[in-house]
Amino acid sequence: MENNATEIPVHEVIRQIMDSGDHVSLPALLTDMHPADIAEALRRLDDEHQPVIILQLPAEQASDVIRELDDSTLERLLNNLSDHSIIKLLQELDSDDAADVVAIIDKERIPNILQALPEKDTIDLRTLLLHDEETAGGIMALEIVAVNQDSTAQDALQSLRSKRNEVDDVYNIYAIDRRGILRGLVSLKDVVLADPRAKLRDIMSTDVPIIHPEMDQEEVAHIFHKYDLVAAPVVDSANRLVGRITFDDILDVVEEETNEDVTMMAGITHEAISERSVFKLSWVRLPWLLVAFFGEVISAIVMKHFNVSSTKIIISAYFIPLIMAMGGNTGIQSATIVIRGLATGEFSLRDTGARLLREIGVALLNGLVIATLLFIVVTVWLKETNFGILLGFAMIFVLFMASFMGTIIPFVLKRINIDPAVATGPFITTTNDVLGLLVYFGMIHLFSQWL
Amino acid sequence: MENNATEIPVHEVIRQIMDSGDHVSLPALLTDMHPADIAEALRRLDDEHQPVIILQLPAEQASDVIRELDDSTLERLLNNLSDHSIIKLLQELDSDDAADVVAIIDKERIPNILQALPEKDTIDLRTLLLHDEETAGGIMALEIVAVNQDSTAQDALQSLRSKRNEVDDVYNIYAIDRRGILRGLVSLKDVVLADPRAKLRDIMSTDVPIIHPEMDQEEVAHIFHKYDLVAAPVVDSANRLVGRITFDDILDVVEEETNEDVTMMAGITHEAISERSVFKLSWVRLPWLLVAFFGEVISAIVMKHFNVSSTKIIISAYFIPLIMAMGGNTGIQSATIVIRGLATGEFSLRDTGARLLREIGVALLNGLVIATLLFIVVTVWLKETNFGILLGFAMIFVLFMASFMGTIIPFVLKRINIDPAVATGPFITTTNDVLGLLVYFGMIHLFSQWL
Repeated sequence: MENNATEIPVHEVIRQIMDSGDHVSLPALLTDMHPADIAEALRRLDDEHQPVIILQLPAEQASDVIRELDDSTLERLLNNLSDHSIIKLLQELDSDDAADVVAIIDKERIPNILQALPEKDTIDLRTLLLHDEETAGGIMALEIVAVNQDSTAQDALQSLRSKRNEVDDVYNIYAIDRRGILRGLVSLKDVVLADPRAKLRDIMSTDVPIIHPEMDQEEVAHIFHKYDLVAAPVVDSANRLVGRITFDDILDVVEEETNEDVTMMAGITHEAISERSVFKLSWVRLPWLLVAFFGEVISAIVMKHFNVSSTKIIISAYFIPLIMAMGGNTGIQSATIVIRGLATGEFSLRDTGARLLREIGVALLNGLVIATLLFIVVTVWLKETNFGILLGFAMIFVLFMASFMGTIIPFVLKRINIDPAVATGPFITTTNDVLGLLVYFGMIHLFSQWL
Repeated sequence: MENNATEIPVHEVIRQIMDSGDHVSLPALLTDMHPADIAEALRRLDDEHQPVIILQLPAEQASDVIRELDDSTLERLLNNLSDHSIIKLLQELDSDDAADVVAIIDKERIPNILQALPEKDTIDLRTLLLHDEETAGGIMALEIVAVNQDSTAQDALQSLRSKRNEVDDVYNIYAIDRRGILRGLVSLKDVVLADPRAKLRDIMSTDVPIIHPEMDQEEVAHIFHKYDLVAAPVVDSANRLVGRITFDDILDVVEEETNEDVTMMAGITHEAISERSVFKLSWVRLPWLLVAFFGEVISAIVMKHFNVSSTKIIISAYFIPLIMAMGGNTGIQSATIVIRGLATGEFSLRDTGARLLREIGVALLNGLVIATLLFIVVTVWLKETNFGILLGFAMIFVLFMASFMGTIIPFVLKRINIDPAVATGPFITTTNDVLGLLVYFGMIHLFSQWL
């Protein structure tokens, strides 16, 4: 039993051992480490050190490490491994993990590698690779314990015994009919506790969620979360059992989708977190900056059009940041609530109207508070009562518009099947900046006689 | 087998049945529904309809529904249930779910309710309620299958059989010694497949992560994710087994923590998503708006100080939005990468220096691109070459500073044990706005002779 929250940087120890040419200590150290800890050390090691470690490990332990690697580390590693080493690793992996590895290997190397694998593995891999990575088919495994629904609990345990080496984790036994159609499932606990002679059809649960291979992985995660599933079957359009998904795949999906949403909200792609090259990092972030850039050039054009600097109230420029910040923050607040609600399944498209009303109510209420404060600041500090009144009304209008856009845009994107998370960050902020400044200077222009 | 992705709003059906006074259809409808689906319908129903449904259901099914409810719906429901009904529900729930319910009940009602429960339940509840809700102790359950490490696999299955009604889901059998100290665990699959006469100490895994009750739930989630755990034991400081945590609790934690991070990034609290009252919604969002408000008032003071409107280049105001937007977006990009990296455990405090260098590199690179574009726009559109050059340099400086602040602030917050997610959204954007405008107008002021 070990404390895994240790603060000693293992990869440093490994690097020192390797650099010192000590070939005895390394295997000893690695044998005692959990695959997940070796994976973490690999992530922090340089390209030349990585393959040495994998080649040191027995094939089974090496494949456990591979399963735990993130895509960017895995890619670096595979580039430095021979076809022969990769083939050995693939044979040890479950079909879904093997498919994840093949998806990352250089395209030119794949035919060679697949050719060298046993025919059954190749067929499995080709089947899995047909599915989009971000669907149920892309995360399912083909290794599964399925028995005829007329078998007894004892038969089921016998079948489990015969597959003990092939299937790592078993939570459910799947009950199928002669044609391979899924009829129900029994948890391992229930099989164990049942009368050994009981037929599966009499003890199985038929209340099984339907997951097809093409279902989006985020939707699969919702189903797992909603029904507290530890594992679930995947069926084709004829309800034939084709694979299974387990909770650990779902934890990966949730992390992946969260990274995707959060980074998209900030106008970056999720690869940005594990990426190491400054040029690539710069490249993935530039697009959103350019969107904002051209948006704010429009702001500049708006201001020139209204001839800002010659308006009676020359101080109008002082409040540009305030108008922008209040509109920007309000828009992001509304958009974030809608995006999270849609992501967790708490909101659906049906809620558009109700949510819109609520968000606008909040914006008007907050607008009133901010406008009052603003009026006080302008009157006390600059002694400009009329301008303070105008600024207050402009602020309320800007918040109203920002929350309207912030609420409606994610719903619209969802409806046209674009990830609503695109709607936050640079996109919505820039839109609100331009609209907010239009309102602000438009109002100053309109009421300039009165100021 | 039913398709759960159905688009029919069940809560509407329920409401219609209830309003029509049809007392026969409702139980029939509810019996066929999954508890998670009933929970979702409850969330969308009004306060007067909710208790009727719960009281219609048999106690066991009602408690399954309660387990699936979010806190805000649960609170509404409990306010409308009698002490007597709550007591009946609590007796059906697992200890961890019961503790979650008690944590939400009005403080004045708790003594009465606890008094009416069987003594063992009360002791369990008091034990669990001692722990902070967001720690391992707050999410663990006390129902557990633990046997002496010298027992055989057959004994373990016998013990499982005797606890079948008490423990819902069983994934591991925990092996303890005479003093209750955890010695290892065996997965249910391995117990089933083992020779019935094999001793647990010979088949158990001793490589068990150590989770103490006071560990933060986010750290527990990292451990589950890293080691792909389906269930894990919780031990006290003497390594005595005190409870267990299962993957479904972890899915809840991950969703909760994600909501917390994402909404904090947008300057709202995570209750905002399920909250219904406009006043409460407005109240939770106002604080961050006020932070931004007073920050931007400082921007206004900066601009007044530099006497913006009378600078030689009157057009300087046009580019305030651009300076703010570029600085704001860059700061948020850097901060989001650091916050996500820290949240997923991909970065640690050790990475501060390396990350800072990388982020600054990216900012300078992107700054160069944006500055060049800006120079072209200003020269072509406004025919102000010198101002274009100045603006370009200001932009590079602003991006440098924004990414510096965006990277360093989350690391500093993490070091002083404040959630780094606070650093995004209004806080960092406002800081960058003020600093950015200081740099911009400072440079214009400094080089005004040359413009």
